[in-house]
Amino acid sequence: MELTEAMRTTFACREFTDEPVSDEVLHRILDVARFAPSGGNRQGGHVVVVRDPAVRRRLGELVQPTLRVYAAQAAAGETPFNSVHPTAIDVEAALRTPTDILPMFDHLDEVPVVLVVTVDLAKVASVDKDLDRVGLDTGASIYPLVWNILLAARAEGLGGVLTTLIGPAETDVQALLGLPDSHAIAALIPLGRPVKQLTRLRRRPVEEFVTVDHFDGMPLGSRRE
Amino acid sequence: MELTEAMRTTFACREFTDEPVSDEVLHRILDVARFAPSGGNRQGGHVVVVRDPAVRRRLGELVQPTLRVYAAQAAAGETPFNSVHPTAIDVEAALRTPTDILPMFDHLDEVPVVLVVTVDLAKVASVDKDLDRVGLDTGASIYPLVWNILLAARAEGLGGVLTTLIGPAETDVQALLGLPDSHAIAALIPLGRPVKQLTRLRRRPVEEFVTVDHFDGMPLGSRRE
Repeated sequence: MELTEAMRTTFACREFTDEPVSDEVLHRILDVARFAPSGGNRQGGHVVVVRDPAVRRRLGELVQPTLRVYAAQAAAGETPFNSVHPTAIDVEAALRTPTDILPMFDHLDEVPVVLVVTVDLAKVASVDKDLDRVGLDTGASIYPLVWNILLAARAEGLGGVLTTLIGPAETDVQALLGLPDSHAIAALIPLGRPVKQLTRLRRRPVEEFVTVDHFDGMPLGSRRE
Repeated sequence: MELTEAMRTTFACREFTDEPVSDEVLHRILDVARFAPSGGNRQGGHVVVVRDPAVRRRLGELVQPTLRVYAAQAAAGETPFNSVHPTAIDVEAALRTPTDILPMFDHLDEVPVVLVVTVDLAKVASVDKDLDRVGLDTGASIYPLVWNILLAARAEGLGGVLTTLIGPAETDVQALLGLPDSHAIAALIPLGRPVKQLTRLRRRPVEEFVTVDHFDGMPLGSRRE
């Protein structure tokens, strides 16, 4: 598949047909995705391919508390789990209230396959770790791999979605999947054949997020060459 | 360009010819890269295209302290700035010792163009922000865009590299580029035409980082279908 077409049509897919995803197809996807960069080329990533439906079901259960808080914050007009504005919702009440905003997680055992991508923090330069804000840079060493997996899956006619809602359950997932202590969870990716392949994704035009020389600078192309 | 070829040959390019990168080419790159996913499709990313050589030179200067510590830690066999193992180097001595491990940063004004990618933390679900480890998940909403830029640049015959060493100088960069307080720096990407296009990248085979159902599980393809 042509790069531009893959980039423009790799959407967040959460509904899959029953068609299985073979090991052969997964191997092809990962054999291309592995060329992603990482800090110092230390390649601290690991992928657990979750075939066992019981393990997938358990992963879906572990997402539920976070999903409930997420749903309540979103309903209140907040950016869920953002690190800048404190939440105003009643978290305890939210935790007691089931939600159906992402039914995929109620049926994770029925998704054709789930990948859990982890990263060995002992191998990552977390350059911003002493700044007085939420950590960000650590992700530079693992999300290119995660995104490569979704792009490569697209070229195989598959779809998936980058999710991080499993994050707060990390200790439980470490036990469930036998992760070493230094491995953090970067993503949970459900994969399968999309019920419907979207081809028109809603994104801001270049003019809305690119400026020259300054955050409030001119848009690209407006200067004299 | 075919997706697989782009993924396999997008290398960390740090040496560029003098050929300029036009606004038109940059626009094409960003017009494809913008289809990257982000949490809730909130698209908190911003790209500052740094054309002004004085601003590029200043960015290079701001990297130097971090680069010196990085070099000393790497020379001591440590993973620089990792969040798991404490450093044993003399940081003050390292800060007084110039390094030439990444000469690109001494000449950032001579690189054809530099992109600074920032993200509005008020728009990101930092799902792991209360975990007792360095933040990671925030990167899920911006590094797909960053990596898309490098992949799309490859298809234009250009090269670049995802760098985060500017991170600790964030306050200075916020002032230099006029970033809003809630914008964190995700990456500094130098871009240009590579002096030499590499085509064989060193990466682990799938068998070394992919397992089934468990971190210490079987490699992919070893089970009976």
